[in-house]
Amino acid sequence: MDQLIFEPNINDLNIIIIGSGNIAYHLCKAFSKTDINIDGLHARNEKEGLRLAKMSKCAYYPHISEIPENCDIYLICVSDDAIKNVVDHLPDHIKKQRIVAHTSGSKSMEETMKTCNNAGVFYPLQTFTKGKRMTYRAIPFCINGKNEDTRQTLSLLANKISESVQFIDDEQRKNIHLSAVLINNFVNHLIHASELLLKKKSIDPSILQPLLLETIKKQKSLGALEAQTGPARRMDSKTIAAHLDLLKNHPAFQKIYDALTRSIQQTYNPKK
Amino acid sequence: MDQLIFEPNINDLNIIIIGSGNIAYHLCKAFSKTDINIDGLHARNEKEGLRLAKMSKCAYYPHISEIPENCDIYLICVSDDAIKNVVDHLPDHIKKQRIVAHTSGSKSMEETMKTCNNAGVFYPLQTFTKGKRMTYRAIPFCINGKNEDTRQTLSLLANKISESVQFIDDEQRKNIHLSAVLINNFVNHLIHASELLLKKKSIDPSILQPLLLETIKKQKSLGALEAQTGPARRMDSKTIAAHLDLLKNHPAFQKIYDALTRSIQQTYNPKK
Repeated sequence: MDQLIFEPNINDLNIIIIGSGNIAYHLCKAFSKTDINIDGLHARNEKEGLRLAKMSKCAYYPHISEIPENCDIYLICVSDDAIKNVVDHLPDHIKKQRIVAHTSGSKSMEETMKTCNNAGVFYPLQTFTKGKRMTYRAIPFCINGKNEDTRQTLSLLANKISESVQFIDDEQRKNIHLSAVLINNFVNHLIHASELLLKKKSIDPSILQPLLLETIKKQKSLGALEAQTGPARRMDSKTIAAHLDLLKNHPAFQKIYDALTRSIQQTYNPKK
Repeated sequence: MDQLIFEPNINDLNIIIIGSGNIAYHLCKAFSKTDINIDGLHARNEKEGLRLAKMSKCAYYPHISEIPENCDIYLICVSDDAIKNVVDHLPDHIKKQRIVAHTSGSKSMEETMKTCNNAGVFYPLQTFTKGKRMTYRAIPFCINGKNEDTRQTLSLLANKISESVQFIDDEQRKNIHLSAVLINNFVNHLIHASELLLKKKSIDPSILQPLLLETIKKQKSLGALEAQTGPARRMDSKTIAAHLDLLKNHPAFQKIYDALTRSIQQTYNPKK
């Protein structure tokens, strides 16, 4: 029985949410589908804070100094740059005795929460929009903690929401966050660029949706390295030149086209 | 009744397929699910040509000079650079009397088929892999033709396969093909880059799949312009610098990151 160092009764955990943005909203929603109860919520934005607290049937605390000090987990769901300020204003007793975790993909655990004895990370790898319905069971949660108890407790908590929970250290999480920018932000901008090009030629951009869907399916079944096709991979310099010419009034898109084409060429024809 | 200038009995059309690559394969498959019969197939690659002809229960012609001259539509499904050579070797009677259409996204109709009186384009906007099962009804077909009869006939033929058939002129088609490169080739390469970054940190890249799926869903419901988030849009120079630093051993990815970040910044903060 020695390996069971720590086995918290997860249903008895008291949770405080700090923040009222997209992540706070969706964590509240996700917990509401479980047997985990949120004990209270603090947010600087009173209107949103009250709305989320009402939705979660928990107390709203307008000032951080008022939040109860005897809860088990304090989830800081605020923007990256605001985390440090929240930590600075947390009562000392909480920082010494309780688990304090942020939900950021890019912020270091050590740097932002060095005053917290049981600092942790509770990062859901997903893009969130308030009000949008989501399937929480599939969202990967990246968990870290300064000590084993913290990691274990946060991991059990994440498992209440999701089937995909992993221990991820800070270095790994930073690379995951960078990958998320490529996969979400950059893919979305490429879709925007395409839509713009088509609209200028009076074409309904919805014509691209079946291709986009098949692109996602194909990389999943073949792997992206194998699934690659197109003028860059086959070193078709005529088509590449024609495309760059079509983009002559969009210098920012031309640079994107050039950078991606060169990178694909280097990947598949490293000698050239 | 005057508006019915031309109303071919589409079920009676005789079709010849030229080529045995991905598009030829999938057009054969797609026609096999309709009441359209393929009359014959020519391909330089005898093994693949015979295989496709057998699959389509039609005659295989090893030499282009042997294909029957009395068919209605000749679909040239070969790589861009091979189209002109096929047209050059087509019997004159076919070029004068029949509909000759290529399936390319980027090649001009006029330039590649100027010797054909009834030249046309029959471009399916999709990424094809031999052997992969596909839903043909949703694939957008871009149709063009030198004259109204050609456009009408090709459009009726495409409608046998797909619910999404549009008249698209050469200028529009070139922009659609460029957009397809952004949406398919470039998105796929960004996925590859992410997978590479994660594998180097011993993370299973499948962790990104739920985010990728949500990215596609979100742009569809909100529109890509509205759906954009991330460090570039919010001008978060600290995170951008940290990401460029993480990519310091990948100069080609750094250039992609830089070009996409600048383009997003210009889109949402045009003054800076």
